[in-house]
Amino acid sequence: MTTDGLLRTASVDELTARQQMLRARAARSGVDAVVISTGADMRYLLGRSQGSHERLTALVVPTKGSAFLIVPELERPGWEGSSAESMGLEMSTWPDGDSPYRLLAARLGPIAELAVDDVMPVRHAHEIRTAVDCRVEPAGELIGGMRVVKTDEEITALTAVAAAIDRVHRRVHEWLRPGRTERQVGADIAAAIVAEGHQRPDFVIVGSGPNGASPHLEQTDRVIGAGDPVVVDIGGPAPSGYFSDSTRTYCVGSPGDPEFATVHDIVRTAQQKAFETARAGVSAAAVDQAARTVIEQAGYGPYFITRTGHGIGLEVHEEPYIVRGDDRLLSPGMAFSIEPGIYLPGRFGVRIEDIVLIGADGSPVRLNHSPTRWELP
Amino acid sequence: MTTDGLLRTASVDELTARQQMLRARAARSGVDAVVISTGADMRYLLGRSQGSHERLTALVVPTKGSAFLIVPELERPGWEGSSAESMGLEMSTWPDGDSPYRLLAARLGPIAELAVDDVMPVRHAHEIRTAVDCRVEPAGELIGGMRVVKTDEEITALTAVAAAIDRVHRRVHEWLRPGRTERQVGADIAAAIVAEGHQRPDFVIVGSGPNGASPHLEQTDRVIGAGDPVVVDIGGPAPSGYFSDSTRTYCVGSPGDPEFATVHDIVRTAQQKAFETARAGVSAAAVDQAARTVIEQAGYGPYFITRTGHGIGLEVHEEPYIVRGDDRLLSPGMAFSIEPGIYLPGRFGVRIEDIVLIGADGSPVRLNHSPTRWELP
Repeated sequence: MTTDGLLRTASVDELTARQQMLRARAARSGVDAVVISTGADMRYLLGRSQGSHERLTALVVPTKGSAFLIVPELERPGWEGSSAESMGLEMSTWPDGDSPYRLLAARLGPIAELAVDDVMPVRHAHEIRTAVDCRVEPAGELIGGMRVVKTDEEITALTAVAAAIDRVHRRVHEWLRPGRTERQVGADIAAAIVAEGHQRPDFVIVGSGPNGASPHLEQTDRVIGAGDPVVVDIGGPAPSGYFSDSTRTYCVGSPGDPEFATVHDIVRTAQQKAFETARAGVSAAAVDQAARTVIEQAGYGPYFITRTGHGIGLEVHEEPYIVRGDDRLLSPGMAFSIEPGIYLPGRFGVRIEDIVLIGADGSPVRLNHSPTRWELP
Repeated sequence: MTTDGLLRTASVDELTARQQMLRARAARSGVDAVVISTGADMRYLLGRSQGSHERLTALVVPTKGSAFLIVPELERPGWEGSSAESMGLEMSTWPDGDSPYRLLAARLGPIAELAVDDVMPVRHAHEIRTAVDCRVEPAGELIGGMRVVKTDEEITALTAVAAAIDRVHRRVHEWLRPGRTERQVGADIAAAIVAEGHQRPDFVIVGSGPNGASPHLEQTDRVIGAGDPVVVDIGGPAPSGYFSDSTRTYCVGSPGDPEFATVHDIVRTAQQKAFETARAGVSAAAVDQAARTVIEQAGYGPYFITRTGHGIGLEVHEEPYIVRGDDRLLSPGMAFSIEPGIYLPGRFGVRIEDIVLIGADGSPVRLNHSPTRWELP
């Protein structure tokens, strides 16, 4: 474990505690074993994952008996010196041409109920169900309920990567100038995301003028003009695995659209209201509604076409979702974006996004601090 | 459609034909509808996919009735001007907070049997099964059986991207020198992969000395020494979506290990034998065995720890797998790697990999042509 927040990875003690908690939760749910293939869940439980191809790599946590890892033989060297080794996990390797599913079945013995990680490809889940001959369900809250509440180590990692993306936003004025294309500006931002300590950029949205009205449009060759509003929504994972995600909407010079400053102000107010509403014991839906009410009362309700936010951690989108109809109650340790927006087709978009943490005392804490004003310095 | 092989995308006519073929295959299999979420299957059927997050985007092909697309409302602008529009596909959008699964159920009406793409996350498949209340199985051969046989348009794309990675291999000698680290060499190769027309590098393995004995180890800060063998396994997708993948094993100067030249020669012979064996009507397992026999007879059997190859197309690993126990018969239009190797732990590895196509007359055609010798020019 390192003390640098951007590099920090979970200690063996923390990983072991997570595995024990998962086993206890599985037992309480009547599940006989949990099978976790590559992805964020594996990283959460082992401190490491790997590229997900067609060969099954899986952590298996039986309710009774020791956890073990199923690893393709040719991937085994990559696990040398890993936390999985330090945890004393047994690794069962399988060579190409053998069936990892039959290996799993042999290791597990007869069981009735198996949970698999939510993003396991159905192909793997189907083969497991056939080989083990048991019921297979997505793990859902079994793992999700653990990941949604961040530990102190995880909060340190999220705080560090949020500060890194803030540093990028504070430099956007260096690159955002009339006459440059979205793609050119995006390339500069992407380089800065890495320079400021991320492992890689994951998304670099530079939505100028009418392009800003499409929330997920990344970059085009559109030349940014004087007076254009520009939505800049950027982020990526730190080497720790934890993601940043922050949006600011700038204007290049004096706004060309007379409505822009008003709209920007409304979105900023909506973001602030949602932030103030986000407390332990309040539902995700209530936070969404707080932002929505501000925008609706200003007459822009139909143009707020997204949810208000999403959880963040080892994935850029995870629980809790801050969305209409979600009655989940917020609690200390939850971290999520608050990012209301107004999208005027053919004209422009405005979105302002901070990552917010529910602190130990139940009150909200912003992790992003770059200025939200649209004026460039 | 463009005539440049690296940029080529499937024509609307070809996409429409694929969709009709899928419908006919589904009907013959007793499936009522096929649901394809984001990924290579979607790209194969629509000429486009998108980042796969938690929001469901899916192409739905019912056996009876018109195909349609389920799209998150905020992603809808990204589909403007797409082939999906040209094909006349109806797009059903859903806003955040609504259930795309209930929308799917309402659109489909009562059905009994549904197939989903093989890599759909189990979470989506579970929600679909619950909302539609029907059996859900992976599509498997329904789609896989189509993708495994490449059309002329696809062969053009694979040929073009193979030529692009050949151009990179022909330049490796510019960067591979004693005193440089694997990571430094890898960065130069990654830049060349893009410069030669790929959309991005997907993997850049530079395995020097003992690191070459771990088939999937990408790069480390190991300094390459004079006399070190170096496995260089590189590839990525062209803008067309089709992948390259080619491996050469070089030696920096005169080989430090007296066994290296012999081992390299054996691997080259094994690769050639497997190539000559690969013909229409021959099984995938027989091609694997052809390479294996050469290596076993030379006494290195235990050190050939992987299968011989994998199919390639819109994914870097797909059917057909050239592996022990796979009785699938090769047929014209199949494209796959032939990449036997010998991995000597603590010493070095050797792998040689070309993409091979089964031609219209049933005989094998190499798509890669960079020199296989280990000497650098």
